[in-house]
Amino acid sequence: MLVKEKLSNWLLKEKENALAFLQKTVQEASTTGNESGVQKIVAQKLEEIGLEVDLWYPDGEELAGHPNFCASRTDFSQSPNVVGIWRGSGKGRSLVLNGHVDVVPEGDLKQWDDHPFSGKIIDGKLYGRGSTDMKGGNLSLLLAIQALKATGTTLKGDLFFHSVIEEESGGAGTLAAILRGYKADAAIIPEPTNMKIFPAQQGSMWFKLTIKGKAAHGGTRYEGVSAIEKAAVVLEAIKELESKRNNRITDPLYKDIPIPVPINIGKMGGGNWPSSVPDLVYLEGRIGVAPHETLEEVKKELEQYVMRIQDPWLNEHPVSVEWFGAQWLPGSIDPEHPLMNILIRNYEHVRREKPVIEASPWGTDGGLLSQVGDTPSIVFGPGVTAVAHYPNEYIEIEKILEAAEIIALTIYDWCGGSSE
Amino acid sequence: MLVKEKLSNWLLKEKENALAFLQKTVQEASTTGNESGVQKIVAQKLEEIGLEVDLWYPDGEELAGHPNFCASRTDFSQSPNVVGIWRGSGKGRSLVLNGHVDVVPEGDLKQWDDHPFSGKIIDGKLYGRGSTDMKGGNLSLLLAIQALKATGTTLKGDLFFHSVIEEESGGAGTLAAILRGYKADAAIIPEPTNMKIFPAQQGSMWFKLTIKGKAAHGGTRYEGVSAIEKAAVVLEAIKELESKRNNRITDPLYKDIPIPVPINIGKMGGGNWPSSVPDLVYLEGRIGVAPHETLEEVKKELEQYVMRIQDPWLNEHPVSVEWFGAQWLPGSIDPEHPLMNILIRNYEHVRREKPVIEASPWGTDGGLLSQVGDTPSIVFGPGVTAVAHYPNEYIEIEKILEAAEIIALTIYDWCGGSSE
Repeated sequence: MLVKEKLSNWLLKEKENALAFLQKTVQEASTTGNESGVQKIVAQKLEEIGLEVDLWYPDGEELAGHPNFCASRTDFSQSPNVVGIWRGSGKGRSLVLNGHVDVVPEGDLKQWDDHPFSGKIIDGKLYGRGSTDMKGGNLSLLLAIQALKATGTTLKGDLFFHSVIEEESGGAGTLAAILRGYKADAAIIPEPTNMKIFPAQQGSMWFKLTIKGKAAHGGTRYEGVSAIEKAAVVLEAIKELESKRNNRITDPLYKDIPIPVPINIGKMGGGNWPSSVPDLVYLEGRIGVAPHETLEEVKKELEQYVMRIQDPWLNEHPVSVEWFGAQWLPGSIDPEHPLMNILIRNYEHVRREKPVIEASPWGTDGGLLSQVGDTPSIVFGPGVTAVAHYPNEYIEIEKILEAAEIIALTIYDWCGGSSE
Repeated sequence: MLVKEKLSNWLLKEKENALAFLQKTVQEASTTGNESGVQKIVAQKLEEIGLEVDLWYPDGEELAGHPNFCASRTDFSQSPNVVGIWRGSGKGRSLVLNGHVDVVPEGDLKQWDDHPFSGKIIDGKLYGRGSTDMKGGNLSLLLAIQALKATGTTLKGDLFFHSVIEEESGGAGTLAAILRGYKADAAIIPEPTNMKIFPAQQGSMWFKLTIKGKAAHGGTRYEGVSAIEKAAVVLEAIKELESKRNNRITDPLYKDIPIPVPINIGKMGGGNWPSSVPDLVYLEGRIGVAPHETLEEVKKELEQYVMRIQDPWLNEHPVSVEWFGAQWLPGSIDPEHPLMNILIRNYEHVRREKPVIEASPWGTDGGLLSQVGDTPSIVFGPGVTAVAHYPNEYIEIEKILEAAEIIALTIYDWCGGSSE
């Protein structure tokens, strides 16, 4: 029997157990600070599969000294990281499989048709916060490893399975895994891509613009300067900057993406009384960072652009720019990288169609892996992009199994597998 | 001795007592709900002067049934209104003198150089919240009445001195006085006009516009519709509407006013996450109402204008318009009204210059007096417009005395005074 058939048959038989496992991990509502339960389940699973397991509590104080540390906490004493290690026999290419277990909050309960952490299965879909982003993807990784083990595979290269915390809050979990030495020749991250293959991932940063005006009574508003009117001028400039930045992008990975690296203004507020001219407005936004850019370059470009807005009032009262909250490094791998070729070939084997190959519109821990861990990363996973972070999040069960099969074959080819 | 000289001499002698009285009334920090202390002082003063005094607690439940009632409370059990009545001998023209005793809150204490209710006198200015808006103006009224009484004047027409609550919160005090029957052939309201004469006063209303968008991840912002971008379209339309409305105004009273009836957007907010396309934005503003307009006409014009914005998204997702909070009726008197002529003549007598005659950029209780009380109103007072509602509010003492003299002579002429 061919390896492909053996893996495929094994996965088919394992399906029910696998879904029960996914339900269990979804039911562990692993929002920030509550990852311990799910991580212990994952660690136990890795032991059962036969991997060496490293479960540790990242040292926040130590991490905080790293220039790419970005988190709203430094206490990870209840939030373990887990890495499963499958040592190769030697002289093979190593691989990181990376998935995060933290999930975003469930949000407004009224918008959920069922309990947000139900794990309920209806019509081939498994529902719950974290099902798509990204416990379903993590299950594909585990199944791939388990299938290889169960079918008696040995590998030449090392395989590291990262089960990390903190992806949704800045990547401190993956940073900790990298700093602990769990790097490799390349990585696969099964974030919810709708089975698209993303050799490049957009980074991003948050900024806050503060715009001053001059207060006056609304009845004599001509005696003041409206910070809301000036904010409209700034919004216009931000759109120009967005065009300018995107016109520079010629990478064919972006050819079907209307705005490769958008600048989104997500929040705005200002003024405090209907009858007063508002003297302060803030805008909060996210700027996308292209894979070839550094965060510093992009910061500088936005700061300078905002500084040069042609407006006499703003020239005398410059817009202030702050960089706050989360930052995601862009990530990438050469589209001609051998791991890309292997992944595409196996994708075509399993799905009998060509994959969509694009750049992702959001950052992942692949930025840290690529730039800090020197581990070029591909993002490819079974989850449904549109329901990540939304009510009634779900994942299609068939896609989990397809991804597992594709990834199992890819590990086999990349790490130099051989079968009994 | 001429009446003018007698009044002038009496006022000069009374100055010290008058200032002590003003200090006392300013020190009674009569913010909303705390008007009782100052009203009792005023009532006592009116009795001393020899007027009939009506002090009563407006019935909020009863007032609330009136279409022009506008207040955030209906309990006035701690907030008396006071009217002082000087009955004329008959067949003369009657006059209302109207001033409010409520003051706006002191705001940020750090911005005050002294205690906000100090009443301190420095370099001819008396400081404190309410000094300019409008206890100084009220003092001018009291001094005018007192001077006439002290110099043995009798009047043909009735004189009503309204010392009202709630002007800063929608005019329920003046409404209560009108409904109790204290109306007249005309009125003078000494709001802080910098000694300008306002035969017309701008009314105003508050509105809230709610603009919908469509949420999406900021990295694929082209999949959403930004409510902030749509708000910019609405802001543009509001400016057009403002131009259109103001281009219609030909009244020479507005000739030196850059925007006779402005539309001010005073507050704005929306969105809740830098990385999400905002799906809801609200704008809160104030629209000025010209003296010849009704509130209903203006509401309809704004609602229709906003409805007709040429934007496919907004056509399918119409901006919602709410009218909330305070409303001030516009007020006016014919610029050729005999009371205007008398006031102008006495102004020129006392100040030896021509008065500035304009339309006010804000509403006063003159709107209710004109439109509900059928009492055409002139706004003219000694206070400093620019410091009303601001830290370090003050009034120039000389102006109080000048206004008192002008008003005393005007009462004399209008109500048919005769001297012993």
